[in-house]
Amino acid sequence: MKIKLKRHAAPFQFDVTNESGQSLQLDSSPQTGGQDYGFRPMETLLASLAGCSAIDIGLILKKQQQEVEDFSVEVTGDRNQESPAKEFTRIHLSYQLKGQLDANKVERAIQLALEKYCSVALSLNPEIAIESAFSIDSNHE
Amino acid sequence: MKIKLKRHAAPFQFDVTNESGQSLQLDSSPQTGGQDYGFRPMETLLASLAGCSAIDIGLILKKQQQEVEDFSVEVTGDRNQESPAKEFTRIHLSYQLKGQLDANKVERAIQLALEKYCSVALSLNPEIAIESAFSIDSNHE
Repeated sequence: MKIKLKRHAAPFQFDVTNESGQSLQLDSSPQTGGQDYGFRPMETLLASLAGCSAIDIGLILKKQQQEVEDFSVEVTGDRNQESPAKEFTRIHLSYQLKGQLDANKVERAIQLALEKYCSVALSLNPEIAIESAFSIDSNHE
Repeated sequence: MKIKLKRHAAPFQFDVTNESGQSLQLDSSPQTGGQDYGFRPMETLLASLAGCSAIDIGLILKKQQQEVEDFSVEVTGDRNQESPAKEFTRIHLSYQLKGQLDANKVERAIQLALEKYCSVALSLNPEIAIESAFSIDSNHE
């Protein structure tokens, strides 16, 4: 797996491309000259965790014949303000699913994704507290 | 810090937005129905590390009056093929800088960024081997 980052404009606007030719834009925070050209790196890390876990949850539920009609996630991250790196200390994922879904199966799928199958989650520092919640919007309620 | 992911199309095409209104697109691998709608989550994680370290390297060099005229990074990631999560085991970053730059200062800036200042690097599992290399394109050579 390979990606390339190039400077788009100073100080820190970047274009990143992958091997399939997709691109995404990054920028720094306003404090270091950012002008909302794209996601900040730490937001991008949260996006990767949201997407990775969403895929694994979907795959697990599909195997169980649970049809997910719609899916969204809100992710917040808390950072260590006392460290020079301000790394994440806690990440909270709130999953919203739509469909005729068994709550126990959804809960178990989220747990399995975050603890065993999600590549991004397992690449993060185990000291980061990864917490989750979920809600199910059933059609017939 | 907060981001939101929404499904764009089944199975796993997603739009992610941040609090400033920027967006990025994610998709799964072709094996699970991906159709190159956007970056894959693990590519996105590499992008976040590339961008984060690029910002910190730039900030450190700026403090030392080293003017970086252009900047790019190539990032490769190796994954644990024997684990269900296929998490990263090794990430290699190859930095290409342009300008009248002191090689020792560049080397030290990369080391400081990856080991101390880069939020994404310090949020990754310390078991991942993070390796780097660099080249400098000086104008007057």
